[in-house]
Amino acid sequence: MITLYSWATPSGHIVSIMLEEIGTPYDVRTVNISKREQFHPTFLAVSPNAKIPAIIDDGAADGPLAIFESGAILLYLTEKSGRLLPRSGADRAKAFEWLFWATAGLAPTLAEFGHFAIFAKRKTPVAIDRLSAEADRLLRVLDRRLAEAPYLAGEHYSIADIAAYPWAAGAGVLVREHLNAAPRVRDWLEKLSARPAVQRGMAAPLLAARAARAPRSFNNP
Amino acid sequence: MITLYSWATPSGHIVSIMLEEIGTPYDVRTVNISKREQFHPTFLAVSPNAKIPAIIDDGAADGPLAIFESGAILLYLTEKSGRLLPRSGADRAKAFEWLFWATAGLAPTLAEFGHFAIFAKRKTPVAIDRLSAEADRLLRVLDRRLAEAPYLAGEHYSIADIAAYPWAAGAGVLVREHLNAAPRVRDWLEKLSARPAVQRGMAAPLLAARAARAPRSFNNP
Repeated sequence: MITLYSWATPSGHIVSIMLEEIGTPYDVRTVNISKREQFHPTFLAVSPNAKIPAIIDDGAADGPLAIFESGAILLYLTEKSGRLLPRSGADRAKAFEWLFWATAGLAPTLAEFGHFAIFAKRKTPVAIDRLSAEADRLLRVLDRRLAEAPYLAGEHYSIADIAAYPWAAGAGVLVREHLNAAPRVRDWLEKLSARPAVQRGMAAPLLAARAARAPRSFNNP
Repeated sequence: MITLYSWATPSGHIVSIMLEEIGTPYDVRTVNISKREQFHPTFLAVSPNAKIPAIIDDGAADGPLAIFESGAILLYLTEKSGRLLPRSGADRAKAFEWLFWATAGLAPTLAEFGHFAIFAKRKTPVAIDRLSAEADRLLRVLDRRLAEAPYLAGEHYSIADIAAYPWAAGAGVLVREHLNAAPRVRDWLEKLSARPAVQRGMAAPLLAARAARAPRSFNNP
């Protein structure tokens, strides 16, 4: 069994979508970041970087294994399941490329943009303008990629799409006009949104479809 | 032959260190980001995200293959060479974890910190303070990891160390006092700095040790 430590954020949804796509049963523990639960010692023992998502795989070869970072969990689960990553050739390299583009470029830009534009009490126009311009640039790069190929790695849906989807889907809240200027991104978002596994993954951890009961807190096992 | 498109930045050095570690001959093309050469159409054809580093591998199975994103290039080269990534088990998952921690956490934080604290003409204390605190937190997380194990993946040097090293090495310019509070990070930096491949990689692209001649610009083949 895999235990997922998560909250309703784009990074959290990356992992719940992946777990739903590969059909692995998982149990959810909520980590309420609005209550700063990510700094609780019980959670830090799982995720020493104090961020969700994290998993514990009780079925790992060497015994229970904790992993943090959504990109690392995607690679771990794709290898464990043999699913959603091209096995060789240029498509595999393209999947790696867009996986890192999403986790190391799109995600930090939109997360910081969300902080400065929505959550910060004091507004800082210099930071907001910088992050808005970078978000716009990144969505145009994504749009050009999706003019070349139906999915980020090429012909097939992969972990690269899963890494980018929840961030791009959330970008509409921040940068609706940027998204309107990226028609291929909108079509790709619509196509992915129709996948049942994506719908179930986006509903976790609060609905936790496969857990078959309400999720419990990380420190209330 | 691999062609490396790079400039003397931490992201660029990640790839030149990797190429030196695995002993692959490579040719260097400079992309002078202070002259905004990363937006030149010739370079965008290689790296559509307009960032260095990127590579072209003429010896890829399906024909010449261009790859951008330092993390993606590390995964590609570790699979091509069979070097610097544990083959299975918990150490492999830990290598993935710290590879993403470095590329998706440490790198964007220090890059933005560098922008706001050094390059931006107008200083924005709110952004500088936020990024300084996050850099400090990340260096403490790294210090705790290096109290558990000699390298980021565990017992052995891996692509996770290569992804974190140039950023942590450069952090001293920005956050000397934070680094002084992280003695295990300083010891690990010293240990890695003694590796000849790291020294050669950090000298590229301006010295480009293995290229055996001065590097040429990306648009002057």
